Amino acid sequence: MNGADRLCDGLLANGIDVCFANPGTSEMHFVAALDRKPAMRCVLGLFEGVVTGAADGYGRMAGKPAATLLHTGPGLANGLANLHNARRAHTPIVNVVGDHATYHLSYDAPLTSDIESLARPMSKWVGRVASSEAVGATVSEAVRAAVETPGIATLILPADCAWGAVEPAVIEPAAIHPPRAVDAGTVREVAEAMRAHRGRVGLVLAGKATRADALEVAGRIAAGFGARLFGEVLSARTERGRGRVPVERIPYPIDAALATLKDIDLLILVGGQEPVAFFAYPGKPSRLIPEGCPVLTLAEPAEDQRGALEALADELGIARSAAAIEVSPNADLGAPSGALTDEAISRIVATLLPEQAIVCDEGLTSGRSFFAHSQSVAPHDYLMIPGGAIGLGIPMATGAAIACPDRKVVSLQADGSGMYTVQGLWTQARERLDVVTVIYSNRAYAILRLEMQNVGAGHFGRNAERMLDIDDPALDWVSLARGMGVEAARAESCETFRDLFAAALRRRGPFLIEAVL
Amino acid sequence: MNGADRLCDGLLANGIDVCFANPGTSEMHFVAALDRKPAMRCVLGLFEGVVTGAADGYGRMAGKPAATLLHTGPGLANGLANLHNARRAHTPIVNVVGDHATYHLSYDAPLTSDIESLARPMSKWVGRVASSEAVGATVSEAVRAAVETPGIATLILPADCAWGAVEPAVIEPAAIHPPRAVDAGTVREVAEAMRAHRGRVGLVLAGKATRADALEVAGRIAAGFGARLFGEVLSARTERGRGRVPVERIPYPIDAALATLKDIDLLILVGGQEPVAFFAYPGKPSRLIPEGCPVLTLAEPAEDQRGALEALADELGIARSAAAIEVSPNADLGAPSGALTDEAISRIVATLLPEQAIVCDEGLTSGRSFFAHSQSVAPHDYLMIPGGAIGLGIPMATGAAIACPDRKVVSLQADGSGMYTVQGLWTQARERLDVVTVIYSNRAYAILRLEMQNVGAGHFGRNAERMLDIDDPALDWVSLARGMGVEAARAESCETFRDLFAAALRRRGPFLIEAVL
Repeated sequence: MNGADRLCDGLLANGIDVCFANPGTSEMHFVAALDRKPAMRCVLGLFEGVVTGAADGYGRMAGKPAATLLHTGPGLANGLANLHNARRAHTPIVNVVGDHATYHLSYDAPLTSDIESLARPMSKWVGRVASSEAVGATVSEAVRAAVETPGIATLILPADCAWGAVEPAVIEPAAIHPPRAVDAGTVREVAEAMRAHRGRVGLVLAGKATRADALEVAGRIAAGFGARLFGEVLSARTERGRGRVPVERIPYPIDAALATLKDIDLLILVGGQEPVAFFAYPGKPSRLIPEGCPVLTLAEPAEDQRGALEALADELGIARSAAAIEVSPNADLGAPSGALTDEAISRIVATLLPEQAIVCDEGLTSGRSFFAHSQSVAPHDYLMIPGGAIGLGIPMATGAAIACPDRKVVSLQADGSGMYTVQGLWTQARERLDVVTVIYSNRAYAILRLEMQNVGAGHFGRNAERMLDIDDPALDWVSLARGMGVEAARAESCETFRDLFAAALRRRGPFLIEAVL
Repeated sequence: MNGADRLCDGLLANGIDVCFANPGTSEMHFVAALDRKPAMRCVLGLFEGVVTGAADGYGRMAGKPAATLLHTGPGLANGLANLHNARRAHTPIVNVVGDHATYHLSYDAPLTSDIESLARPMSKWVGRVASSEAVGATVSEAVRAAVETPGIATLILPADCAWGAVEPAVIEPAAIHPPRAVDAGTVREVAEAMRAHRGRVGLVLAGKATRADALEVAGRIAAGFGARLFGEVLSARTERGRGRVPVERIPYPIDAALATLKDIDLLILVGGQEPVAFFAYPGKPSRLIPEGCPVLTLAEPAEDQRGALEALADELGIARSAAAIEVSPNADLGAPSGALTDEAISRIVATLLPEQAIVCDEGLTSGRSFFAHSQSVAPHDYLMIPGGAIGLGIPMATGAAIACPDRKVVSLQADGSGMYTVQGLWTQARERLDVVTVIYSNRAYAILRLEMQNVGAGHFGRNAERMLDIDDPALDWVSLARGMGVEAARAESCETFRDLFAAALRRRGPFLIEAVL
């Protein structure tokens, strides 16, 4: 056996049995090793952004890392934007990057580049395998790094470390510490501050604090103490729907975000960072909370967020049997008819959403109304792009479908951002994944048109139009999908859209609906 | 006016009047400024790899830089693979990356990342604008850095430096030094070594040494002195065809490369690096020349390669009126018929190639035979992927067509690598570019199948097949092209292919032929 076999064994020993891959020549020994391990599911992406975005979607839903397989610096580079999203989502990924043989690097062959420099901004851990015999220890370290905090561990595998012989050995799983418990002092300090600001306290829930069980605890705090519960601007994964405690989403548009938080006097962070303005705007603040509002951290991303909420509830004297905040049922979503609008699509999708669907939302401006309409519909998971790097939606839906083969994935996708990693549709077809993609086809970078107005440019000339509109030529998403083996159809009315969406939900396998706005 | 206006003026003052763009919110002031400059041609790419690859193709053919416009770290990341290719091609590019406002960075908003760490591996110069008033000086520095060596200058533009007011000013073009002349001592040393190894000398021509005028000089040296002329494994731009001095291409496969160079006793580099094995293989050398073979540099990439060749010819006593090596006319390319093969496509393309075509070759395994068949056909430029990062072909053809609107661009494209940046077809349609794309549709990563055999894995199991074949589902390139507004047709026989290719050459505008192998 060789170093590549050892790497596969190490991954499998740690329960990592899915590898999203786009290999090249320097990874051929790893491919040959994977070929000897039928327990590993290898999923090919036709572009590395598909690979890393799928690993993100998989990791969020599986609760454990996938491995990736990328080819040298440029292959890693192509995957970095979605690694950026995964980093912000705190998704565990063991990101394997093949490199030249150690002795070949000094010759500066064409594909040589500084992989570490490329990897560091998106990785919490970067390690280079030093020898074939070192593979076992390095993969353990990578797995531990990926799982414990959690985040992206980039493991660089030189070709000669992959092909060099090693002695067979039994591989032990890495020793993983469970999430750290929050210490009692922090809980007391937070509770004390909350009592001092009663009535004007907000909790920002992130990480595992947005799972149903933790939300239930937060809901008891909200009901028993009076705090407001916020989700992040772009959350990694929120369990929502009927019977679950809702969070208010902090809006993306700066003015709406400021208005949402204007009455908060104390902000408590549970598993995430302080929410700040997505971008800076002339004359507007970077922070979203009122000046002087203190921010306390109840639990870090690497800590036990649910446990921290339970301790906080106890500290605040809220009985474990107390009721969580009441969820008001959705207003009637109606039966939209006639010409399609963003709003109508959101209502129809929310109405028809099946139980335990996984909603991947990269609808951007078009998707915003979905959140408002879907709090009390069928229970579902809701995944966004926490890093704001567009081009995650299609790959994330792909990875989520592999993690949860028995659940329907609904991929709400803006057209402009969908084009970044459109190749992911092919992987959906190849793996027969149960994903319904809805393309909001507005033929513009609509979010940028709004942002141009925010910067005071009301009238657009030719150069601006040429950079903000994508209507010439119009993208034909039905052709694009079919070109990659995904069945597709176009809807221009609410009636057609409802029929297509309902039909897509009834069958298994990938389907794409181009919703023309 | 503001800092963004100053940046536009600085680019225009230096003759940079094409901007390949994929902007985001932090670049809206730059977009607004571009909107006030009709002299700047803004070309949108639906993915950043299209933007940077087009800037590479443009820079190689225009002989001057284009600007890019990318959105923060993830936008840059998406463009890095083709910047890697551009770096290896020594293409001048002023790579503009927008970032958050300076004061916003400390809040670690979602799109924040270490842009410098991402940019450095692919850039010869990285600079961050410090203030609106500093924009003028920084853009001059960037232009000088991009043009003089030449290579990629990454200019990071914080949003507040773009939107901050500046005083109107006349912008002077940057003071650019012409390529350095090679000193006489180096020329004498090279000539002396050549005389000592007469009969076993090879010159590797790169950079401007592969333009017709410099090739003519090299051809006189080859004829008058007896040296062999080599091109790089993957050259950036070679002027080839009838009446031009040919170079031997150093093959990509390691064994063929070693065989090609086995009789060389002295290697002279003109404008490039020593050619080495593309990858390391167990038991095979990294260097391609025989052990002990000295390597001398006649001219660096930043030096005057043609001048150096002329000085060398003089030093060797070769008359300026002497004849260059004779070019043997091509063997008859015949009229292939029946089922399509790589070889048949190469013959047909070579036969029909129009005068002054620009051939962008990312055909990889399928394209290899084109080079052999095209030495004596119509004069053309031949562009490859010097960095080996696949996904350059379609964008490079796009940029070349913008640089040279009166020349036909023939884009020879492998299917696997074409998918990486397939979005470039949309830009070809939008800009009505005169590009004929030929997809070698073999439905496999054929190069990797060969490489797997090189590593000794003769039989492929399921996992390997799943990573090397892309036949399930088959990509339908005609649908993909039409989905992006590019007319397309499929050829399964030589006769159909010839008819389609001839028809595509007769018309203007983008056309794609899926050649099914």
